[in-house]
Amino acid sequence: MPDSFISPQQLLEHWQGHRSLTRRVIETFPDDQLFTYSIGGMRTFGDLSMEMVTMAAPMVRGVLTGTWDNPSRDIKEKARVLQLWDESTDEMNRLWPQIPPSRFSETLMAFGSFPGPAYSLILYVIDNEIHHRGQGYVYLRSLGISPPAFYER
Amino acid sequence: MPDSFISPQQLLEHWQGHRSLTRRVIETFPDDQLFTYSIGGMRTFGDLSMEMVTMAAPMVRGVLTGTWDNPSRDIKEKARVLQLWDESTDEMNRLWPQIPPSRFSETLMAFGSFPGPAYSLILYVIDNEIHHRGQGYVYLRSLGISPPAFYER
Repeated sequence: MPDSFISPQQLLEHWQGHRSLTRRVIETFPDDQLFTYSIGGMRTFGDLSMEMVTMAAPMVRGVLTGTWDNPSRDIKEKARVLQLWDESTDEMNRLWPQIPPSRFSETLMAFGSFPGPAYSLILYVIDNEIHHRGQGYVYLRSLGISPPAFYER
Repeated sequence: MPDSFISPQQLLEHWQGHRSLTRRVIETFPDDQLFTYSIGGMRTFGDLSMEMVTMAAPMVRGVLTGTWDNPSRDIKEKARVLQLWDESTDEMNRLWPQIPPSRFSETLMAFGSFPGPAYSLILYVIDNEIHHRGQGYVYLRSLGISPPAFYER
């Protein structure tokens, strides 16, 4: 077995901590700004949140089963985003422990288009969420709204 | 040995990939905007970059040696930020392989103030960089400047 920086279970907890923070950022957006407000021609935080929904649980499912779904992103209601978010959280917690640890170093083809070691594909999803959530912080600040503290998970 | 999601060497490569992207974001900022431009009362990207400089190599040094430095952040020139960035990159590459793999699951007190398992403290530094770099993307977009592609490392 290779040396370990972090175990699979620790990584899931780290990820879900980030997802808990992102959920609070979604909640913090005013309902009428989530899918309308943006800066510099970028996507709204609602659309970015839906991108996260279509990446997180589908990545875990794909790594476990080899089946890669691309769920619809066509949702424009905060309540529905949060519902899908919570369903994803439960699914990820259920599927993750079923992934054999050796899988994380295997090279996969995610969603039919993205080749790489499984650990790298999974980190990409987490990093993409942190990246876009940081953008949501700027949107909120520019609206005069204080976002949740970054260090609270 | 615990199951491994990612090895220490893979994690360093992942981290340095992010740092390479962040370096290009710093370079992309116009010299006269790096330490002056911001949105919503937030810090400038120059100040955020200097925060990253004071966290990355000092974290690796602290995890390896138990000595926690807090270098000065008082720099306001792009060329100097980039020089410190490159020195940090070299130092991190030199020190990281000297960290015993068992260290990453030990609980440490980073910078005298932040307790946690070493892997979590290190991920915090990486996540903080991704978070603030995402904010830099919004600053650039709002200036009409295209940032480097997120997926290129």
